[in-house]
Amino acid sequence: MKAHLSGIFVPNIVPYDAQGRINEEELRRIIRWLGDKGVTGFYPNGSMGEFIRLSYEERKRVVQVVSEEANGRPVLAGAAEPNVDLVLEMCAHCADLGCRAVSITGPYYYKLSQESIEEYFRELAAKSPIDIVVYNIPAFASEISLPVLTRLALDCPRIVGTKDSSQNMPRFLHILHEIKSQRPEFSVLMGWEELICDALFMGGDGGTLSSAGVVPEVIMKIYNAARSGDWETAKHGQFKLLDLFSLMVNAPNFPEGFRTGYELRGFHPGKARFPLSGPEREQMTGIRSRIACILAECGFSEAAHACGTNHPKPDDMREQIEVIVQRVMDSLGTKPS
Amino acid sequence: MKAHLSGIFVPNIVPYDAQGRINEEELRRIIRWLGDKGVTGFYPNGSMGEFIRLSYEERKRVVQVVSEEANGRPVLAGAAEPNVDLVLEMCAHCADLGCRAVSITGPYYYKLSQESIEEYFRELAAKSPIDIVVYNIPAFASEISLPVLTRLALDCPRIVGTKDSSQNMPRFLHILHEIKSQRPEFSVLMGWEELICDALFMGGDGGTLSSAGVVPEVIMKIYNAARSGDWETAKHGQFKLLDLFSLMVNAPNFPEGFRTGYELRGFHPGKARFPLSGPEREQMTGIRSRIACILAECGFSEAAHACGTNHPKPDDMREQIEVIVQRVMDSLGTKPS
Amino acid sequence: MKAHLSGIFVPNIVPYDAQGRINEEELRRIIRWLGDKGVTGFYPNGSMGEFIRLSYEERKRVVQVVSEEANGRPVLAGAAEPNVDLVLEMCAHCADLGCRAVSITGPYYYKLSQESIEEYFRELAAKSPIDIVVYNIPAFASEISLPVLTRLALDCPRIVGTKDSSQNMPRFLHILHEIKSQRPEFSVLMGWEELICDALFMGGDGGTLSSAGVVPEVIMKIYNAARSGDWETAKHGQFKLLDLFSLMVNAPNFPEGFRTGYELRGFHPGKARFPLSGPEREQMTGIRSRIACILAECGFSEAAHACGTNHPKPDDMREQIEVIVQRVMDSLGTKPS
Amino acid sequence: MKAHLSGIFVPNIVPYDAQGRINEEELRRIIRWLGDKGVTGFYPNGSMGEFIRLSYEERKRVVQVVSEEANGRPVLAGAAEPNVDLVLEMCAHCADLGCRAVSITGPYYYKLSQESIEEYFRELAAKSPIDIVVYNIPAFASEISLPVLTRLALDCPRIVGTKDSSQNMPRFLHILHEIKSQRPEFSVLMGWEELICDALFMGGDGGTLSSAGVVPEVIMKIYNAARSGDWETAKHGQFKLLDLFSLMVNAPNFPEGFRTGYELRGFHPGKARFPLSGPEREQMTGIRSRIACILAECGFSEAAHACGTNHPKPDDMREQIEVIVQRVMDSLGTKPS
Repeated sequence: MKAHLSGIFVPNIVPYDAQGRINEEELRRIIRWLGDKGVTGFYPNGSMGEFIRLSYEERKRVVQVVSEEANGRPVLAGAAEPNVDLVLEMCAHCADLGCRAVSITGPYYYKLSQESIEEYFRELAAKSPIDIVVYNIPAFASEISLPVLTRLALDCPRIVGTKDSSQNMPRFLHILHEIKSQRPEFSVLMGWEELICDALFMGGDGGTLSSAGVVPEVIMKIYNAARSGDWETAKHGQFKLLDLFSLMVNAPNFPEGFRTGYELRGFHPGKARFPLSGPEREQMTGIRSRIACILAECGFSEAAHACGTNHPKPDDMREQIEVIVQRVMDSLGTKPS
Repeated sequence: MKAHLSGIFVPNIVPYDAQGRINEEELRRIIRWLGDKGVTGFYPNGSMGEFIRLSYEERKRVVQVVSEEANGRPVLAGAAEPNVDLVLEMCAHCADLGCRAVSITGPYYYKLSQESIEEYFRELAAKSPIDIVVYNIPAFASEISLPVLTRLALDCPRIVGTKDSSQNMPRFLHILHEIKSQRPEFSVLMGWEELICDALFMGGDGGTLSSAGVVPEVIMKIYNAARSGDWETAKHGQFKLLDLFSLMVNAPNFPEGFRTGYELRGFHPGKARFPLSGPEREQMTGIRSRIACILAECGFSEAAHACGTNHPKPDDMREQIEVIVQRVMDSLGTKPS
Repeated sequence: MKAHLSGIFVPNIVPYDAQGRINEEELRRIIRWLGDKGVTGFYPNGSMGEFIRLSYEERKRVVQVVSEEANGRPVLAGAAEPNVDLVLEMCAHCADLGCRAVSITGPYYYKLSQESIEEYFRELAAKSPIDIVVYNIPAFASEISLPVLTRLALDCPRIVGTKDSSQNMPRFLHILHEIKSQRPEFSVLMGWEELICDALFMGGDGGTLSSAGVVPEVIMKIYNAARSGDWETAKHGQFKLLDLFSLMVNAPNFPEGFRTGYELRGFHPGKARFPLSGPEREQMTGIRSRIACILAECGFSEAAHACGTNHPKPDDMREQIEVIVQRVMDSLGTKPS
Repeated sequence: MKAHLSGIFVPNIVPYDAQGRINEEELRRIIRWLGDKGVTGFYPNGSMGEFIRLSYEERKRVVQVVSEEANGRPVLAGAAEPNVDLVLEMCAHCADLGCRAVSITGPYYYKLSQESIEEYFRELAAKSPIDIVVYNIPAFASEISLPVLTRLALDCPRIVGTKDSSQNMPRFLHILHEIKSQRPEFSVLMGWEELICDALFMGGDGGTLSSAGVVPEVIMKIYNAARSGDWETAKHGQFKLLDLFSLMVNAPNFPEGFRTGYELRGFHPGKARFPLSGPEREQMTGIRSRIACILAECGFSEAAHACGTNHPKPDDMREQIEVIVQRVMDSLGTKPS
């Protein structure tokens, strides 16, 4: 029997090269660095990894690269492909690479009934050659209701855990209460960093936290403190994380805020796969400076140079000033001639 | 200069064979039949065509098959691929096949700002080798706000129209009012069949209507009556369409309701790509019977045999009765022993 | 039997005096003016009339004043009181004053099941001494589902019509299709001015339109043209109305945009019952100027003086400039020292 | 200076007599009983107290009755009246009665901008004769955004705390992080019982919890254990509370589930002010039985008689069976003849 899923899994970003292709060498460097920092495991092809913007072949390649650099750490790979056959093909691919499990969201785009969603997971659980984690992220994909998740957890041995990114702490407690009481080895992972301390305190098994790619030191300190019962340290880390996470998650063009964080830690995320508008690029300059200051405060001196150096370039300034003038004019109810 | 986009474009379903592969021969038969019925043009890879559940290669193939059978009728092809490069590659593919234009939704999965969405369409408009229709379907993908659409329409010659499936009639009127007053050849297409009569009455250019794949006769009668000023006939057809459309669009596991409609008209849609639960399959049996009755009433005698023949099979009945008993017990607050 | 409800009912604003009390004389002047303009009837205590911000005694008084000035025109009075007994007490009050009917929204604040809402209306219908119109306004109060409305319409003689402000045109068509086919005298009124032309074209009985208080001439021209089959005039009026309505309905602090419209037509709405922030007051100055220009264009010369005279006062300017500087600083990611 | 607000405040129900009037004697009995159980204070005119369904005079009376029976315990009174003047009048009334503070929701019914909402609270804070708690309950009333709440907390001495019923734990942490770091005596109260343990663990000051009216023993045990650092007991109580709270909060026709809980503890809540449908009444019978079983398990033997005695009355059964048959027929797609 496979080991129980617990600890901190890092949903990595995907760095791109100048031509917009996946920069595999940089991806390898990121995974090795995170391993050295002591993270529990990896999570390729999450929302953070822009799986939705990669081609099918690219997604397969990302799992392979991460697996090759995992150095024995468990890999939980996103496998939310567009139809059952392709999900199962990806499951087989991940199994071949030695991944610990795959993580599958509810269907996206269409709005489907809970009954259909349950049937979908039952079919996958019956046919998958690898363990499955049910990934609930209602902001992006169909919610998996609590009764459906509970039935899946109790009926399907292949479904070994859940990742919850709903920010819904009552739901998380009900999962612990209703499922773990009947199947204690079922893994309940928090997917929203603002709640990791609460989740561990109430009995969760760990988390898949994008911030762990930017500040693995901070996240692992929270996790290890919590595991050793040093809750004051865990809570202190949790509150400290709030500002950094807010900046990264609320930055324009998700996941650019996190990719900026990686850049400030010394990596080369490369150009985004989705375009930013001029004003948003400018806004990102300010956000980058603020992220840098927080990182420097945390002792990551490599980011210090970018703190307070928020000097917009003249061309961007002109563009932005035009936007501001436009907004002023709009709010005055007049149009510039 | 290309002809103005107007009339009724049919978003076709994709029929599958017993192995779950695309049934190309049946797809060709559907397209030829629709052409014979006098529809204006075709719309492969729409939401109806389950583009999200096809592989990239399958999507390319569907456009090719539809184009080959279009017999001179214009093709407006869905091209909502996961990133800018892939969208542009699909645009080139559609251009090579002689499509009239492509239709592109707002991004799905991630929630992006209107500024990012605008930048996305501007980049596509600057680089696409084929005309673009902006497809607004907020139930499934990011909404494209009215100010963004207006700026795109007025700034980008490549963007020649919009398809609106938002059910938001005030928005449709504002589009007509604000865009067509400044760019009269901009095409404003209704994407929700309950509003096609209103849309044409107020000045819309036509529609992309999934029902036109099931009852092309009814839709074209509405359209042609409206174009000739015979509004009583158009309104009569509109109200008649409401029941049929409600049944098909609200059936479980969209777009199964429409695929059932094709089946009753004599086609073989094949097994759904997304699984239905047992109770939903049973529910679909009842819906199929009701659709058949409406089709028979409309004079499509090939469907008459299925009207009123709603005799659930014994096995399905047993499954369903268990569900009903469960619900009764639940509502009584007790559990069956 | 009472006359069928049809035509245009005006949901009036409530003018306040310097002490914040209801300005009855001004209210009387408004109602008399609207009657002179030829509106069909009146609608006191609607959302426009801020019923939610009046005391119970004030609401009773408003119905009385409007009824006294109605001069034989029918009054449809809002009666959405906080509990069944108070609704019935208000119904009796309206009946005593000779109102034609009352209009009742779904419950607000709590979220209730459709079954509870149906029971609520059934109880009211059984006990009310006056005809009831079911008012659906899901933006503010619980939606009344189409099946519930249909059952109420077919079972309860006391429920004589519906007012729909949901902006949901498909719903409106289903109401016409499902209810009027079985009970033709059931009155279906449009409560959203952007859809009045569509509503009349498809078979609606009229509307309760707040804009009719500001530009009764425009609304009655649309209505009378539609009734006489002159659809070109009706459509022309509809498109003309879009800009004015958008300005008024989207102005900050609803219903201040409409109250500003009344002010520009020569009435004294008085100070708002809900406070505006400084920047919003300034924004309202610009909106007022734009409303004035549209009114002047429509030939209402009394508003012309305010068109283009958008000169903010120095004090407001200073306040606004501080807000703008703050926004600039925020978007640059820095804080003013 | 008044004492810092902390501990558990009970939002009481309002019992009614056979005529539907407030049953004052029963209300007094409830308040005295809760005081004897050791709750910190009281919270009349909350959502639980159906303030929205009481008349203005009734709301005033409820505060008076509760204050008279509070026996020195602090009273935090709901004062969400329909306009600024009436709120202030209620504030003065509460101040005269010796209440500790009032609690005010964001405005309901209309959807207002955050700027307007901020201005509203600033005006109240400037004029109120009594301390104010800002009550965020976005399910029922306008949300008060975090930046607005933070500015209000830092600028207005009269605003001494917040009650948060949003179920949004990240928001709760940000409030603690951003406000208490600058104004430590600002009181942050949890208004959702599923999160009380988390809230106290992370630094919250207490809660206003409806369940505390039904099981004051359980809630006070959680609270006192948390305060003494006995987190195992607190967590155990928290998980135990989940089932009971879910039953009460999800019962039809909120707050009937809680009123049923009071009834099982020996009080007479009386008939609901809002009607239940027949099937809902039946459903409530089952829920009552399940609540009774949980209460009996907790050692509240007065409820034991109702556990497992779920024998629907014949008349209700007939009604319910008709509903079930209807549902079966509907799901089979046929209509009963």
